[in-house]
Amino acid sequence: MTVSPLARPFPALSPIAGVRIGTATAGYKAWTRADVTLVDLAPGTAVAGVLTRSKCPSPEVELCRARLAGGRARALVVNAGNSNAFTGLSGREAAATQTATAAALLGCAAEEVFAASTGVIGVPLPRDKAVAGVTAAHAALGQADFHAATVAIGTTDTFPKAATTAAMIGDTRVTLTGIIKGSGMIAPDMATMLGFIFTDAVVAPEFLQAALAAANAASFSCITVDGDTSTSDTVLAFATGAAGHAELAGWASPGADAFAAALADLCHQLAQLVVRDGEGATKFITITVTGAEDDRAARVIGLSIANSPLVKTAIAGGDANWGRVVMAVGKAGEAAERDRLSIRFGSTEVAAGGMVVPGYDEAPVAAHLAGQDVDIAVDLGLGQGRARVWTCDLTHGYISINADYRS
Amino acid sequence: MTVSPLARPFPALSPIAGVRIGTATAGYKAWTRADVTLVDLAPGTAVAGVLTRSKCPSPEVELCRARLAGGRARALVVNAGNSNAFTGLSGREAAATQTATAAALLGCAAEEVFAASTGVIGVPLPRDKAVAGVTAAHAALGQADFHAATVAIGTTDTFPKAATTAAMIGDTRVTLTGIIKGSGMIAPDMATMLGFIFTDAVVAPEFLQAALAAANAASFSCITVDGDTSTSDTVLAFATGAAGHAELAGWASPGADAFAAALADLCHQLAQLVVRDGEGATKFITITVTGAEDDRAARVIGLSIANSPLVKTAIAGGDANWGRVVMAVGKAGEAAERDRLSIRFGSTEVAAGGMVVPGYDEAPVAAHLAGQDVDIAVDLGLGQGRARVWTCDLTHGYISINADYRS
Repeated sequence: MTVSPLARPFPALSPIAGVRIGTATAGYKAWTRADVTLVDLAPGTAVAGVLTRSKCPSPEVELCRARLAGGRARALVVNAGNSNAFTGLSGREAAATQTATAAALLGCAAEEVFAASTGVIGVPLPRDKAVAGVTAAHAALGQADFHAATVAIGTTDTFPKAATTAAMIGDTRVTLTGIIKGSGMIAPDMATMLGFIFTDAVVAPEFLQAALAAANAASFSCITVDGDTSTSDTVLAFATGAAGHAELAGWASPGADAFAAALADLCHQLAQLVVRDGEGATKFITITVTGAEDDRAARVIGLSIANSPLVKTAIAGGDANWGRVVMAVGKAGEAAERDRLSIRFGSTEVAAGGMVVPGYDEAPVAAHLAGQDVDIAVDLGLGQGRARVWTCDLTHGYISINADYRS
Repeated sequence: MTVSPLARPFPALSPIAGVRIGTATAGYKAWTRADVTLVDLAPGTAVAGVLTRSKCPSPEVELCRARLAGGRARALVVNAGNSNAFTGLSGREAAATQTATAAALLGCAAEEVFAASTGVIGVPLPRDKAVAGVTAAHAALGQADFHAATVAIGTTDTFPKAATTAAMIGDTRVTLTGIIKGSGMIAPDMATMLGFIFTDAVVAPEFLQAALAAANAASFSCITVDGDTSTSDTVLAFATGAAGHAELAGWASPGADAFAAALADLCHQLAQLVVRDGEGATKFITITVTGAEDDRAARVIGLSIANSPLVKTAIAGGDANWGRVVMAVGKAGEAAERDRLSIRFGSTEVAAGGMVVPGYDEAPVAAHLAGQDVDIAVDLGLGQGRARVWTCDLTHGYISINADYRS
């Protein structure tokens, strides 16, 4: 598979204390690559998660949702090549059996084992392969690093995606590292956004959940490749507590803001990497909406622009077709007044006050659109609401990946 | 431009008493084709309309919305090649001046002249060309038929689209004829859905509006090509009253149901023709949703499937990827229970009870998908809500039309 032209190099990642990784080949497809990943987490690790809002979620998503209530994790199992979604009782049993196997091997409660699977919908996870795979991954614990795990959780991803950052909690430096896969919110048979964040910080589960939810709202919830939402989207954050500082129990704890800011920065980086591997992507598009009634309205309008096939194809073609942005604002359904609307491409204002700016010169806009990074800014002139969303262009590559083959 | 493979022949259309048509070349683009259409309507003609819900509508849409309150029409002016949307004061003045010119030529009030424009967004309708064009079209009144008008209102349409039907009001046969253009809800610079319906029936404006709104809900509101909503979408219905029967004043009037049914049938035909000319379309897709909580939920779920790029590309590729239908149901946000969901492609049930059917054979599904007409049926197993929506597939043709050129 051709690497996305928007790819970023894999960062240098140090191990996180309290996190051990093993990978193995379960053989969910006719391949020899590693496709099952087991992460062993130190006892007492706090866990938080955000999960797909799909009404037809995978059994793994349901399992995570139920187990998040406990707030503690001892292991994570990830399968690549089979999403196990829409597979009825046999799929549910396979997920339960695989996580119970991990629990038995690690000597923990099954309720402390989390799971995610990505790949084709509608084929039950083969139970025997899943059990053998996680057993082999357990035997290999400590032999895989974050890079190996990132490759093992990938499917149609064209490059491995990870990010790292750090925060100071008092005098203690804590590390936050995340790995992520996904080339669409969902993609052809074999893709879904799965993200896993690991930190050695000492964090109460409730605060980890609050900080993750806040970070998610401005990162994973603000990206779109094709507007299609997976049955399996999962982001889990694990805090092993190995750094040993005083626990971050809530927003008032010393260092809580620094940790939350670092987590938000990490999610921001990971989310952008997913867009950079969007199917067929050739342009990375940032859409900034200001002046909306409120932040919620700004995000809805931003996503309406980001999901518009006509806006995305115009940018693919390097076409300064700002009328399509007007269309996408108009269809979003949120408060907008045509005659207060202004639009920028890059640093050039193209429209204001309900019409094109006097003496509009398309040349600088065309030059901006010829680059890989495209910025569109819309001001609604109504209030203080603002949002930023990220997407990619819609190209022949997307059609080729999704239509020009039989699954 | 290549004619859509889904095109239908133009029907034989008789004139409607009380309707006279003239076309002319205003020259909104560098072309010699007719691009302005004037329709002269008998005094007392009732009018009704449904208009885009865009928050950034064109001045013509605003003008129609205001004038519909009067309930009577003497003329319709349609411009092709310039949508006049997002053009500020000068666009509004051009629309007002052009319709005032038509009113002066016909000796009626300006408030009885309706207008629609389609084409590039952001370029004010050139006032002098618009006035000269409508004046020339007035001089040509009676020289154009419905076919000529259909061609003159078209833009990127690959074939002219019209339909006709009739109803019996007591002993009187009335005719309903509609012409329509549009190759997307909006399309590259030059497209929008504009539909105009003419009948010689005698109908009170209030009932015409009620019947049109009901017909619209099950036709134009149930189609999608790319999910992008135009700033200019307009459907107007004109009843000249030339048939001379007792006025249809409301649903209780004798013949009202027959008229409404004929109008609904006409709108249904016209809406399907728009899908058949969807940009890049190679498959005509009918999506039937049953068993939803209510009809509204069924329509939302149907449109979620119809607008999903992954469903549309799968069908373009002849891929029986029913997992993508599950995904689209799940993301719609309406009530759904995975384990009650069933899905059919053509006459083959592929999934039921939350999983693939036992012994599922893909062969008949693949055969169905190889044809031009694709039927997808989803039953939610929850209630009595149902809806039917129509769309087309998403192909390289769509990308080529919308990205592979500079506007």
